Amino acid sequence: MSSTLPEPEPLKALIEALRRLPGVGARTARRMAYHMLQHDVAGAQHLAAALGDAVRDLRHCERCNGFSDEAICPVCANPKRDPSLLCVVETPADQNMIESSHGYKGLYYVLMGRLAPLEGVGPAELQFDRLIRRACDGEVREVILATNFTAEGETTAHYLAESLRSHGLAVSRLARGVPAGSELEYVDAGTIAWALMERRSS
Amino acid sequence: MSSTLPEPEPLKALIEALRRLPGVGARTARRMAYHMLQHDVAGAQHLAAALGDAVRDLRHCERCNGFSDEAICPVCANPKRDPSLLCVVETPADQNMIESSHGYKGLYYVLMGRLAPLEGVGPAELQFDRLIRRACDGEVREVILATNFTAEGETTAHYLAESLRSHGLAVSRLARGVPAGSELEYVDAGTIAWALMERRSS
Repeated sequence: MSSTLPEPEPLKALIEALRRLPGVGARTARRMAYHMLQHDVAGAQHLAAALGDAVRDLRHCERCNGFSDEAICPVCANPKRDPSLLCVVETPADQNMIESSHGYKGLYYVLMGRLAPLEGVGPAELQFDRLIRRACDGEVREVILATNFTAEGETTAHYLAESLRSHGLAVSRLARGVPAGSELEYVDAGTIAWALMERRSS
Repeated sequence: MSSTLPEPEPLKALIEALRRLPGVGARTARRMAYHMLQHDVAGAQHLAAALGDAVRDLRHCERCNGFSDEAICPVCANPKRDPSLLCVVETPADQNMIESSHGYKGLYYVLMGRLAPLEGVGPAELQFDRLIRRACDGEVREVILATNFTAEGETTAHYLAESLRSHGLAVSRLARGVPAGSELEYVDAGTIAWALMERRSS
């Protein structure tokens, strides 16, 4: 939007700050700022406080690396969870999805990213050594790699599988196949190929 | 996202606060929160400060009702602008678009909304009396209604035209017609009908 209208400084600063949110461009940031200032000043104050609180109070769980407001998060501290299973995910959102499947009772490790050499994200940036130390605590028997099935997620899984196996750990990967409830006609060919290759006797 | 994972309180509060932004649902809010906390803590602090500053420092220009950090905004205070023309827009974004056309040198009035009876937005909520007082300052000769060409924008324009005319002001509306650079084949029939009705001799 090429505008010649002088915008008041605090408004300009707010729009710039909102643009740093992922997926928010100039137009959306402007719309957000107008909305907040015109219709939801309480919401703006609320958001400012919540941002400040979160930055101040949140840290990474010492065991799983997920966001936590305590040194050890409730999941890692839960004695009912199976400490012999460690599921490695890219983000807390992925962890949420696995948890909501109610199919897993082990513990987690959150990478907070994936290998992306072009963006300068390598094993050091993701602190793979921390994950290795965590996985080698003597209790973990199997590491389940649940990174995304994208090129970068697969690379991350491959790299981690090598290092974890070299430490004598059993490593597995989420099954690839036809999504539950889907019709074969509408599933992409790559998925069908994988589902054929990894078919199981029934 | 039905999740059974306990989320730390500051993270939950931040996600809830981000959801109040227009167009942001639960999933997007979560992604924004993760991104800020993991990759852009400085951005989060920056946004918190910008929100606080904007809420504290911004007010409405006493003449045009747009956002301003002074009592009278620079546009209204500019002696080079034509005070006999007053252009009424719904939002500062619309004002920006008109300004970027470089086709207007008069003054503005920003409604900060449009009539929407179903949402409880009537003439009182939009402070139409303020606009009438502004338009009746003795200098304004013509009011140009530049609300959107949506049902609600049209209703607003219609309502305003009636009241402004009853105060003896000349009232005009932006021309409706075929957008510049467009091919007739791809213009909707309603627009063509309007362009025919409002055709001009050339």
